[in-house]
Amino acid sequence: MMPSTKEINNNSNSSVIKLKHLVQADLEEVNQIILNYAKSEVTELIPTITNYITNSGGKRIRPILTLACAHMFDIKTSRHVLLATSVEFIHTATLLHDDVIDESSTRRGVATANQLWGNKASILVGDYLFSQAFRLMVETSSIQALRILSNASAIISEGEVWQLSNISNINITKEDYFKLIHSKTAQLFSAACEVGAVIADGKPEYAEALAQYGMNLGMAFQIVDDVLDYTTNDEQFGKKAGGDFREGKVTLPFIIALSNADERDKKFLETVITSENKDSMFLECVKILKAYDAFDKALNVARQFVEQGLEALEICPDSETKLLFKNLIIELLNRSH
Amino acid sequence: MMPSTKEINNNSNSSVIKLKHLVQADLEEVNQIILNYAKSEVTELIPTITNYITNSGGKRIRPILTLACAHMFDIKTSRHVLLATSVEFIHTATLLHDDVIDESSTRRGVATANQLWGNKASILVGDYLFSQAFRLMVETSSIQALRILSNASAIISEGEVWQLSNISNINITKEDYFKLIHSKTAQLFSAACEVGAVIADGKPEYAEALAQYGMNLGMAFQIVDDVLDYTTNDEQFGKKAGGDFREGKVTLPFIIALSNADERDKKFLETVITSENKDSMFLECVKILKAYDAFDKALNVARQFVEQGLEALEICPDSETKLLFKNLIIELLNRSH
Repeated sequence: MMPSTKEINNNSNSSVIKLKHLVQADLEEVNQIILNYAKSEVTELIPTITNYITNSGGKRIRPILTLACAHMFDIKTSRHVLLATSVEFIHTATLLHDDVIDESSTRRGVATANQLWGNKASILVGDYLFSQAFRLMVETSSIQALRILSNASAIISEGEVWQLSNISNINITKEDYFKLIHSKTAQLFSAACEVGAVIADGKPEYAEALAQYGMNLGMAFQIVDDVLDYTTNDEQFGKKAGGDFREGKVTLPFIIALSNADERDKKFLETVITSENKDSMFLECVKILKAYDAFDKALNVARQFVEQGLEALEICPDSETKLLFKNLIIELLNRSH
Repeated sequence: MMPSTKEINNNSNSSVIKLKHLVQADLEEVNQIILNYAKSEVTELIPTITNYITNSGGKRIRPILTLACAHMFDIKTSRHVLLATSVEFIHTATLLHDDVIDESSTRRGVATANQLWGNKASILVGDYLFSQAFRLMVETSSIQALRILSNASAIISEGEVWQLSNISNINITKEDYFKLIHSKTAQLFSAACEVGAVIADGKPEYAEALAQYGMNLGMAFQIVDDVLDYTTNDEQFGKKAGGDFREGKVTLPFIIALSNADERDKKFLETVITSENKDSMFLECVKILKAYDAFDKALNVARQFVEQGLEALEICPDSETKLLFKNLIIELLNRSH
């Protein structure tokens, strides 16, 4: 399962819920545009799959970021709503293709689209939503927003190709890992924030600051997610420990343990990642990672990104949104699922 | 095999070769931009697959259309070269995904990318090239070009989804078929022509005329292609008769025969299209289609699109390009492979 599917916080008092309330009216418009742009006169399959995936438990964190960033400035049009929907469509298209690549049969505890309608439908509907994302951007006539989001899309795909080539690669370094999560997660968080500021005519230095905030939010989010892949087993949220592990994805806790391990443990970790029978080795692997303090060390790295995110926010004008953004990134470190 | 892969004419005296000579310098730039935009610092797989597919026998007809249309007007910048490359990338991304959907192992007589590098690589590199297509459009800063090409992309994907839902559907009407080939082939030909005119500041009525020309060129091209799928067996061009037929694609000759067939032949045609063993029925099927004059009737429909294409061109200023465009669409009817 791709980490990007899990949501930032499920606590009803959390900042994400408060941010959602803050942009509630716009978010309802986003939902309406999703319905309109998922319509098709020629095939029912497009709205069926789109509505299924956009309504299966996602909290719309990315469009919320776009809308909230726009609200930090002076909104004169509803173009930010178009861009927020565009961001959600890019994310949805990515999910559809990811589940095909990862051969996933469940996401957030429910069947994936490829499981229900087949890989081919997921590939093509993903392509359609990706095109619709660009149509929405074009509607805003903002070349700057188009540039930010087309760059993000290219970087996301590039990261996915890299990941595909490096499944079960034991030689992945921390730097490789940071580049990967930057492209597959942080880039879209960053672009989501930046286009919100850009479309609301926020000063370039604020847009840049919010881009940095989104980037650090995404990095911290992904690291915490990769720790939780080893440590959480929460059926309520459709999350079973070891999902990425079983797919041969080498993430930060594993990299940290491997670089500190003695010969015997190193041997075991090297064996496990290429083994066909990872399931039976999962608990032993978790034990070794714990022994090397890999989860806490990974969370310390996440904390550094949180701090950088907070720092990036500093120059932005004080506002309720800014305060919620601060809490949002701090709360990441307390995620339990 | 998708029809869009085959090239319009392989005769060295043909109009497509002459058009190619006309835009040779620009086309070399297109090839250079393909190389530059297929580069990746993070993974070799992207340039490897992109260079493989863009160099495996395609004649670059779509970018040639864009460049030639731009050359009909006053070119002040090299933005038309960026758009021509963008059009080729959209086409290439579509080919990569189509071969996954169709489970094709060869294209133009050589192994497909999915055959060599797997479906997953084809899906993700396709996504990457699609994003790069949009980056190239953004470089031109032309919202109008972005609108035309993002619309075309959405219509192409929509058509692909429809086609997926209608494999082996015996109830496909002529109208369904026209809509399908409009979206999967004619739309990109049309957009390729239109953006060329638009980016060279051709008057709106000329851009519209060239869009219509491209549309009719694409329709005629696809119908001829669908006839050739039954009638050509040309190993030199890697083409084996009955490729689409075996995939359960219901095309114009079949639809024409079915609507004219007597009870016995109708029964046979209905059986064949859903049969698991189409190969053994292919020659009998061709015989029945011939008996109902289905190939000539289909070519007559193609001829109507050719005439409409010629008519659309009329209002454009006289030029060498215009003359070659006329010959190009007329020559379609003489294609033998």
